[in-house]
Amino acid sequence: MATPTRIGLAGLAVMGQNLALNIAEKGFPISVYNRSTNKVDETVERAKNEGNLPLFGFHDPKSFVQSILKPRVIIILVKAGAPVDQTIKTLSVYMEKGDCIIDGGNEWYENTERREVAMAELGLLYLGMGVSGGEEGARHGPSMMPGGSFEAYKYIEDILLKVAAQVPDSGPCVTYIGKGGSGNFVKMVHNGIEYGDMQLIAEAYDVLKSVGKLSNEELHQVFAEWNKGELLSFLIEITADIFTIKDDKADGHLVDKVLDKTGMKGTGKWTVQQAADLSVAAPTIEASLDSRFLSGLKDERTQAAKVFKAAGVSDIFTAEAVDKQQLIDDVRQALYASKICSYAQGMNLIRAKSIEKGWDLKLGELARIWKGGCIIRAIFLDRIKKAYDRNPDLANLLVDPEFAKEIVERQSAWRRVVCLAINSGTSTPGMSASLAYFDSYRRESLPANLVQAQRDYFGAHTYERIDMPGSFHTEWFKIANQSKILIQDFISFLSKLR
Amino acid sequence: MATPTRIGLAGLAVMGQNLALNIAEKGFPISVYNRSTNKVDETVERAKNEGNLPLFGFHDPKSFVQSILKPRVIIILVKAGAPVDQTIKTLSVYMEKGDCIIDGGNEWYENTERREVAMAELGLLYLGMGVSGGEEGARHGPSMMPGGSFEAYKYIEDILLKVAAQVPDSGPCVTYIGKGGSGNFVKMVHNGIEYGDMQLIAEAYDVLKSVGKLSNEELHQVFAEWNKGELLSFLIEITADIFTIKDDKADGHLVDKVLDKTGMKGTGKWTVQQAADLSVAAPTIEASLDSRFLSGLKDERTQAAKVFKAAGVSDIFTAEAVDKQQLIDDVRQALYASKICSYAQGMNLIRAKSIEKGWDLKLGELARIWKGGCIIRAIFLDRIKKAYDRNPDLANLLVDPEFAKEIVERQSAWRRVVCLAINSGTSTPGMSASLAYFDSYRRESLPANLVQAQRDYFGAHTYERIDMPGSFHTEWFKIANQSKILIQDFISFLSKLR
Repeated sequence: MATPTRIGLAGLAVMGQNLALNIAEKGFPISVYNRSTNKVDETVERAKNEGNLPLFGFHDPKSFVQSILKPRVIIILVKAGAPVDQTIKTLSVYMEKGDCIIDGGNEWYENTERREVAMAELGLLYLGMGVSGGEEGARHGPSMMPGGSFEAYKYIEDILLKVAAQVPDSGPCVTYIGKGGSGNFVKMVHNGIEYGDMQLIAEAYDVLKSVGKLSNEELHQVFAEWNKGELLSFLIEITADIFTIKDDKADGHLVDKVLDKTGMKGTGKWTVQQAADLSVAAPTIEASLDSRFLSGLKDERTQAAKVFKAAGVSDIFTAEAVDKQQLIDDVRQALYASKICSYAQGMNLIRAKSIEKGWDLKLGELARIWKGGCIIRAIFLDRIKKAYDRNPDLANLLVDPEFAKEIVERQSAWRRVVCLAINSGTSTPGMSASLAYFDSYRRESLPANLVQAQRDYFGAHTYERIDMPGSFHTEWFKIANQSKILIQDFISFLSKLR
Repeated sequence: MATPTRIGLAGLAVMGQNLALNIAEKGFPISVYNRSTNKVDETVERAKNEGNLPLFGFHDPKSFVQSILKPRVIIILVKAGAPVDQTIKTLSVYMEKGDCIIDGGNEWYENTERREVAMAELGLLYLGMGVSGGEEGARHGPSMMPGGSFEAYKYIEDILLKVAAQVPDSGPCVTYIGKGGSGNFVKMVHNGIEYGDMQLIAEAYDVLKSVGKLSNEELHQVFAEWNKGELLSFLIEITADIFTIKDDKADGHLVDKVLDKTGMKGTGKWTVQQAADLSVAAPTIEASLDSRFLSGLKDERTQAAKVFKAAGVSDIFTAEAVDKQQLIDDVRQALYASKICSYAQGMNLIRAKSIEKGWDLKLGELARIWKGGCIIRAIFLDRIKKAYDRNPDLANLLVDPEFAKEIVERQSAWRRVVCLAINSGTSTPGMSASLAYFDSYRRESLPANLVQAQRDYFGAHTYERIDMPGSFHTEWFKIANQSKILIQDFISFLSKLR
């Protein structure tokens, strides 16, 4: 190879391999490297088979780095944490001033900020870029969230614009997110929202199956139908697909044989922790994380089910007679309304962080680049984009006129579904959390006055009033217990006489 | 003063002042110190007035430290974080090998562990001791949770046993918690549980007031009555008190004039973050934290209320006709059942941390020392203690035979209240979260099979099966889209021919 390549990619696991092939396919000659060299050869072989793509493999880091056109740009796609530091160390010794490293993994945003500073000391630029879309997305067009050095972003913008998923009318699913770790942070919240979406879909499935007694064939029909309307999205589409798959090891459908134990990788947890840190209510995302935790306790749940069955509490109660068609329609509406609340939480979390860090993130633009390529891609995101186009300072998606209208139209169905779930013992944690979020947010007066009165009672934490400004403290105990106090004072008086 | 005092206390804000007086009153001569000297004089004056207690004030750290009997023990009660480091720095220069510092504040447990190591290098012992009970508790008997050096604990055990709240049949509300930062951690979770209790009480109030239309007089009656039964507790007692207080600035009751905006100080947030970190579901505690966050958005809520009122959604809907007495009885049962779930979450969080850190904490013993002195003191804690006495390895409070029975008896009322709240638009976030927790924990099969199938579909995350061991991956997309795949394969075949 005589001419240098335009870009490099290190770390050839599933995501890295597919992203490299995608870049090559879009016409950008690419160098690839991996610590275990068999992955390099595998990728080169795939590049050959998938259309003689301009992809060049290297078995050592030095010749890999030196094969790239200066200023060099190298995307690394390895496990978050220590492996990223290790890879940077390996590569940076051969890199020169003005070169750039882009971490494409699900990294904790503070690690990216730490590395950006360390790289700057070596004269290198750094980007933390969230990449969503799984294997398919990486290969044919992911959603990408690059944050960090704007200079570095501009240098590879032409590549990213072509490699990203392309959505008619709204363009490529990539944009410069902002400074520092903002790209990783936005990707983290994207994943938290993904947890919420998956949980809400699982609850819809639960109610339809457990209460409505729908068969897998019917469930396929329902989700396929939903995928033609307001719920049109990747996750609804694959859910419809899942119900069609027959078990290849036994009779019946595969989904019924999958163990009800959900794994996770950390970004959902971070989202919940950041929401707490930033004082942003995120109950739907929390409920989805908690549901994953509880799903993991399969043995405990089996034991608990025995205990409560023995006490007369069956798994699902005989619910009131259900009109199947009405139930399907109600659940669709409940799912949609719950989803609005979940996205409202995620968007407000991003805004809170943006304010804290001075990132100046554009929420509508984020909704735009999530419209294609990524796991949460959905027609719904276009509505979110439009809501922020109408009002970039929108306090909450719930009060956008369009969303408010949609929720009002759906709230009766939503309440019916949650109550039906409660009365049948399925309890939909995510839908309930979304509904409570809506009802709390739209109420001018919450019972928090009592909580604050309690805090002032036992901890003298003071309170404000609804009818006048200022901070107040009341001796609640003394006033409520005048007679007891008089006796105490008398005893104290006696003790002073001693 | 000729004879040295037995102990010292630095930091004379509300908690410090009262704890010092308590120690002196129990017969242990105490030296006190504060950076602003007026607090020292104030405390000395109070000691004189409250029965000539053996309390001695010092205006400089050197003479303060030197006034204490060796090995010296100094309790510090200053704001968590940097002020603790500052105070340690000020005092430790005058301290000698074998002396001990006890931090009595709400400190982050890792700070305590860091300081314990730093102190050990100076030959000093260190304890992090959670103290609960507010002003009253500190003065007349708090619940104390000391963790860290066992040697230091033994040296002051006699003081702590007398200073702590005394509960008939179960002794003083103090015990050696465990190593490292375990005392702070346990106090943190105690506070998280306190958030849960306060939120659940606020929701009970909300339903009774908004749906049941109870007056403040009736609310007082109800809570006073509840305080004679299974709900007997400090928080129910003060709630009953609160409804008796008349506004001294205008007509009506004070509670109705308190702004519905709740403050917080950090321990609730930490509890939620730790739960996420340790994969422990804590939805009730999360709901209480989120409710505080949403309470803080008073202006946004006022705006949102306007938007939705204009769209026909009133604050509270005209609910179905309610039988007041039945409602009161239902709400009591819902509150109690929800509380069990909240404590189950807190206890499991403590156990998870104990296992992670090797602290070997005794959950029953923690319930015992919370029975008096602290904000969450309640007759209910005796039931928890007994549950762990019956089975120290109890996986979850919900499956203790007594608690299981209590929940089963109350579940119909519980479901009625939550549905009534949902249908009236009050939505009880904490009670709903508790109920969903119960329903998730007691179900052998959750819809998590679908979530795991989705994860395997888009991310090849694999899944387990219910009917055979092993880890499996399915090409869901390929199987579901055979016809599409065939076309793709054909195109790919054509491209290879080029």
